[in-house]
Amino acid sequence: MAKRRTEGRFTLGIDYGTESARALLVDVADGREVATAVYLYSNGVISDRLPDAGAQLPAHDWALQDPEDYLRALDKTVPAVLKQAGVTGDQVIGIATDFTACTMMPTKKDGTPLCTLKAFRANPHAWVKLWKHHAAQPEADRVNETARHLKEPWLQRYGGRISSEWFFPKALQILDEAPGIYKAADRLIEAADWIIWQLCGHETRNLCTAGYKAVWSKRDGFPRREFFAALHPDFADVVDAKMLRDVLPLGARAGGLTPGMAERLGLAPGTAVAAGNVDAHVAVPACTVTASGKMVMIMGTSICHMVCGAADKHVPGQCGVVEDGILPGLYGFEAGQSAVGDIFAWFVRTSVPAAYEAQAKKRKKSVHDLLAEKAAAYRPGQTGLLALDWWNGNRSVLVDADLTGLVLGMHLGTRPEEVYRALIEATAFGTYKIIRTFEQHGVAVDEIYCCGGLPERNDLLMQIYSDVTGREFKIARSAQTCALGSAMHAAVAAGRAAGGYDTIQAAAARMAGVRDKTYKPDPQAHATYDKLFAEYDTLHDYFGRGANDAMKRLKALKGVE
Amino acid sequence: MAKRRTEGRFTLGIDYGTESARALLVDVADGREVATAVYLYSNGVISDRLPDAGAQLPAHDWALQDPEDYLRALDKTVPAVLKQAGVTGDQVIGIATDFTACTMMPTKKDGTPLCTLKAFRANPHAWVKLWKHHAAQPEADRVNETARHLKEPWLQRYGGRISSEWFFPKALQILDEAPGIYKAADRLIEAADWIIWQLCGHETRNLCTAGYKAVWSKRDGFPRREFFAALHPDFADVVDAKMLRDVLPLGARAGGLTPGMAERLGLAPGTAVAAGNVDAHVAVPACTVTASGKMVMIMGTSICHMVCGAADKHVPGQCGVVEDGILPGLYGFEAGQSAVGDIFAWFVRTSVPAAYEAQAKKRKKSVHDLLAEKAAAYRPGQTGLLALDWWNGNRSVLVDADLTGLVLGMHLGTRPEEVYRALIEATAFGTYKIIRTFEQHGVAVDEIYCCGGLPERNDLLMQIYSDVTGREFKIARSAQTCALGSAMHAAVAAGRAAGGYDTIQAAAARMAGVRDKTYKPDPQAHATYDKLFAEYDTLHDYFGRGANDAMKRLKALKGVE
Repeated sequence: MAKRRTEGRFTLGIDYGTESARALLVDVADGREVATAVYLYSNGVISDRLPDAGAQLPAHDWALQDPEDYLRALDKTVPAVLKQAGVTGDQVIGIATDFTACTMMPTKKDGTPLCTLKAFRANPHAWVKLWKHHAAQPEADRVNETARHLKEPWLQRYGGRISSEWFFPKALQILDEAPGIYKAADRLIEAADWIIWQLCGHETRNLCTAGYKAVWSKRDGFPRREFFAALHPDFADVVDAKMLRDVLPLGARAGGLTPGMAERLGLAPGTAVAAGNVDAHVAVPACTVTASGKMVMIMGTSICHMVCGAADKHVPGQCGVVEDGILPGLYGFEAGQSAVGDIFAWFVRTSVPAAYEAQAKKRKKSVHDLLAEKAAAYRPGQTGLLALDWWNGNRSVLVDADLTGLVLGMHLGTRPEEVYRALIEATAFGTYKIIRTFEQHGVAVDEIYCCGGLPERNDLLMQIYSDVTGREFKIARSAQTCALGSAMHAAVAAGRAAGGYDTIQAAAARMAGVRDKTYKPDPQAHATYDKLFAEYDTLHDYFGRGANDAMKRLKALKGVE
Repeated sequence: MAKRRTEGRFTLGIDYGTESARALLVDVADGREVATAVYLYSNGVISDRLPDAGAQLPAHDWALQDPEDYLRALDKTVPAVLKQAGVTGDQVIGIATDFTACTMMPTKKDGTPLCTLKAFRANPHAWVKLWKHHAAQPEADRVNETARHLKEPWLQRYGGRISSEWFFPKALQILDEAPGIYKAADRLIEAADWIIWQLCGHETRNLCTAGYKAVWSKRDGFPRREFFAALHPDFADVVDAKMLRDVLPLGARAGGLTPGMAERLGLAPGTAVAAGNVDAHVAVPACTVTASGKMVMIMGTSICHMVCGAADKHVPGQCGVVEDGILPGLYGFEAGQSAVGDIFAWFVRTSVPAAYEAQAKKRKKSVHDLLAEKAAAYRPGQTGLLALDWWNGNRSVLVDADLTGLVLGMHLGTRPEEVYRALIEATAFGTYKIIRTFEQHGVAVDEIYCCGGLPERNDLLMQIYSDVTGREFKIARSAQTCALGSAMHAAVAAGRAAGGYDTIQAAAARMAGVRDKTYKPDPQAHATYDKLFAEYDTLHDYFGRGANDAMKRLKALKGVE
């Protein structure tokens, strides 16, 4: 065990992302981030062939992962951060993880992933299905049709439609396409729960993925057997045969670290291990938010919007409402925009002339920064442009993957930075639409907090969001809010007696913070943007609610030979 | 006089364009183009300051020219082509010109342009107002309002609205803003007629500019005095005081070349000089078209569509119908798209990434050619994109300069060549809409002929136009159809007795031709494009006919501080 050079008590937060995992060692007393390390998954996102020149995947919308990458991430990062910080294992009072979701896999009874067994290794269905595996759309369609047909009451909790990314469509795809794998799978489990199993030695299930991805609720549990039977006779007992009905609340102690894992990572056996959790959701208290009415936006390639309320409400186009799903004692609402930073990246990749790239290079700036600088010279409305931000469909409030992007208002003098600005504005209008929809349906959004990559680096964007929504935007102090949120949940799992906290509220009060700098709306800009938003809203409904389904008809024509 | 090396009889066509003038020497027997020369105007388009560091122009929408450039063009090109061809002046039996229009100027009684006189040289209103001088919009608005108010019957011949580019708005702007210049101007005259005055020594007016730009018709002549008086008391007698009521039909002999001009140019005195004409209109017979039902499209930065019919029809959004205006004995209809090649140039300038520019350079291609090559790999409908081609407003059939461009259907994988293809398709839909509107209002379009820069160099575009419209596209044999068209009119002005022709039909039969290669529609592509056109048409009407005036409201917001 390494030598102690630093006093205090610490927790470890491990944030499992899409391409890499990050470990963050945090001082429990004040949330100070003591050390961090990142591990890039050696097999990354598997979207072409299985590792080691294995089988070709069946289609381009597949996305798999290797569960051994999750263990390698622990091996590589946990000892590294301890060493970096000069902290000994006995100073670490808790460990917690957050994961992408729904990221799920089939395992044997003891948690051994089927893909690690020679008999199944060549079958793509034996591997981890990553959140962005989109090949279960036919199964999602069947789930939705069946639920509507049987009038399943839970459907309305998910905006009337569940996604192909979620647990049961993915499980059903295994049964449909690889019944042998389905049969051999003693367990079907979220990676978020599987990693906890590896740490504490026994299987648990967490409330967050159960609620947001597997249609579970505190009041009604999972959907009834008859519903699953209607999907496929062999699917009737999926919950009782391959899952657990007990779910642990967030921040609960799932167990103590196994002696084997403790030795492997340089930690103490029995260290508190928190129940699994989801990346976006742990970020909420890491932004200091532990009460209702405060929206947290995680802003990066896409945006996830989370807000809690005291009452259950059905908001059109929300991704889901789960009691205790974000914060204990509150209903957690989630909505999202499926492409935000991705749209700007698309624009920079495809639509910026050589002269701009040369200018950016000369001035040692990114093309993004150059465009933002030029775009900042325009007043709201001055470009005459308006866009719909549907480059990857619309997740909220229309829940329609077949919608596409639009830009309007171009003339022969239109410049690239004007289009760039219009694209930023369009994503801000998308967020505004989500906020207004929540409010119109009884979910208050009184304050806005944000975190993620975009607030770190795009000042213009943040000001536009503030001006469009007419709200102040507060920014999380931490640049790695997910890992910090996990470390906070680890402190709750450890509990006050062990030097942690008894509630996430108490943990947030000490460990989380926001920056001094906030973005405040300019009233005149907001007034102009209200006019532009009215135009956005008209086009939103015209193209998104059936008045003109041109986008869908055009998409359908693409495939016609 | 130069030495004769070549036998035969010839005519000279001089095409006065926006930036330069071209002289073409043509063999009357077979239309063979014997020699050509181009003169780039030394003062070009005057849009900032008057020449010789003169006065700043009042606004950015001004566009002037220097009439002395028109004479320098004759001096530089006519002797040059004679020399080049080894043709002597006595072999040239006629000379004709075509001009941009309405390009007009104030002169003294003897034709001296006011801007050449010291007293007026510093006043921008003394110079030639080029066709694209757009500063007379307030006057055009007044003309249209007054005409509607007084129920002037001629308004419907021009699609219900006349343009700020035309003769009376420009003349009225002089009166409004520079009454001294207006008073000093004994004549207000199209450059098309002024150049003929310089060649034959007396003033004439031609039917084409009178009809299409000065609201003249064979049946009713110019608008009545009361109308002009209602615009401005001092404008009441504009026609009788500063213009001519007699107009010469196209191909008429305006007179014989003056001895002075003959000597200056190396031609024979008395050589037939044809009445003035307009660039687009002379191209019609140069495409072999001398009958009704055959549309000629001049395809370049914009597109001009011309077709003749036996009966007077009022087609919505046409630029004008003029009896004998294109071909004698027929009603000539004109429509147009205000930006075509200009849109592709905008795209290449603003929206193509450095990697494409590098690839084009490496492969020694233009970026246009590279994009066209890549875009050609897509089937109709395969991009999933749809655009509205209104980057410079919509000239026909909506006649609305405040409309703007739109692109729809983008996703994160959309590539530049797909957008490029969608822009080409949008301009083809714009042409299709014009053709359909003509046909729906009783003007047959049985065949299509084209000329101009685009058919010369964009194979993909021509095929798309053919596939979209479901028509065969024939291409003029000549790459300089305007100058050839003038040379043909020169042969008609000379007449058969002098070795020319008595009619433009006879001239076209011998002197004009089309290429062997034509573009024929692929029935399957046309069927797909009919579906896409239905989408275009829906958006065309939605944004263009008042259901959603977002484009206009956005444009109005641009100027708000």
